[in-house]
Amino acid sequence: MVVKYPNGKQAETKKIVNRANLGMALETDINKTNEYYLLKDICNVHKKPTPIQIVKVDYPKRSAAKITEAYFKLASTTDYNGVWDGKYIDFEAKEIASSSTAFTFALIHPHQITHLQSVLKHQGIAFIIIRFTKLGETYLVKACDFIPKYLNQERKSLPIAWIRDNGYLIESSYTKPCDYMSVVTKIWR
Amino acid sequence: MVVKYPNGKQAETKKIVNRANLGMALETDINKTNEYYLLKDICNVHKKPTPIQIVKVDYPKRSAAKITEAYFKLASTTDYNGVWDGKYIDFEAKEIASSSTAFTFALIHPHQITHLQSVLKHQGIAFIIIRFTKLGETYLVKACDFIPKYLNQERKSLPIAWIRDNGYLIESSYTKPCDYMSVVTKIWR
Repeated sequence: MVVKYPNGKQAETKKIVNRANLGMALETDINKTNEYYLLKDICNVHKKPTPIQIVKVDYPKRSAAKITEAYFKLASTTDYNGVWDGKYIDFEAKEIASSSTAFTFALIHPHQITHLQSVLKHQGIAFIIIRFTKLGETYLVKACDFIPKYLNQERKSLPIAWIRDNGYLIESSYTKPCDYMSVVTKIWR
Repeated sequence: MVVKYPNGKQAETKKIVNRANLGMALETDINKTNEYYLLKDICNVHKKPTPIQIVKVDYPKRSAAKITEAYFKLASTTDYNGVWDGKYIDFEAKEIASSSTAFTFALIHPHQITHLQSVLKHQGIAFIIIRFTKLGETYLVKACDFIPKYLNQERKSLPIAWIRDNGYLIESSYTKPCDYMSVVTKIWR
């Protein structure tokens, strides 16, 4: 959006950030990429629905059941899982809109770490996708590298330098806006 | 429940069947079994949350966000998936309360068949769990056996005789009320 200033100059205004939508861009990108992967038989990965506690449902005549009271529940697992070449894939995705320097551990719930540990124990492929919105950089960090850092919390966050050194940059294209399988197939093939 | 009859005899009344809860017993059994499997490190399998389209959310002060309008969405995948020994497991579970003779194909949505086909293409372990409530019998039917029958619908249902011949009886115990992994480990080990 372009705003005219009294001095006649033009300046770009800052895009208004809707806090409710933070983290949604990465989700949209992953979902779009997953659709492409499914179409091209690369893998079958889906986002799990948000867990909801339903309290009250109305059944109006001749129309669909309407939920009139419900609450968000804490997820007991990660958001994404699926299959590639017979192998089980499991990951969580987090977008950092406010920081360009570190990933705050508080963004991952302890039960999600427990779940990723369990996936590793069962020989699954487990990782975290971290996007730094301001930097325009998205990384895949293997759960086996991430978890020890999380558990040994000398710091409350993971610095971008560590992520750049230990993670894998995920490339983006129009059909695959978050092409994590290019990384997965290199690491786990 | 015991009812006294005018003739002085006692008779048991039929348990009232709540149609809304049909199919829930199998789900409860599978969830309980999955908890046991997780605890004993046998596998990590979870039921996916029911997909819901949220339309309206209230954010009352000092309390949890309350969903005030939402609708059930059709699931695009099956209900259960997870990992065993690095392998991807995917299945749908159906309880038949009304028939002791056949499984009606209409109980499985076409997009669930498409999903199971895709899982097979990606070398995943795919099956259907079918329980005949009246018979007290629960079977695992491999997706690769079930799908051709579903697609070649000369009949609108799968007879119990075929299921007994081609499926695998799932045993039940207190800790594992639907012990499907005993079958899975025999077939896919």
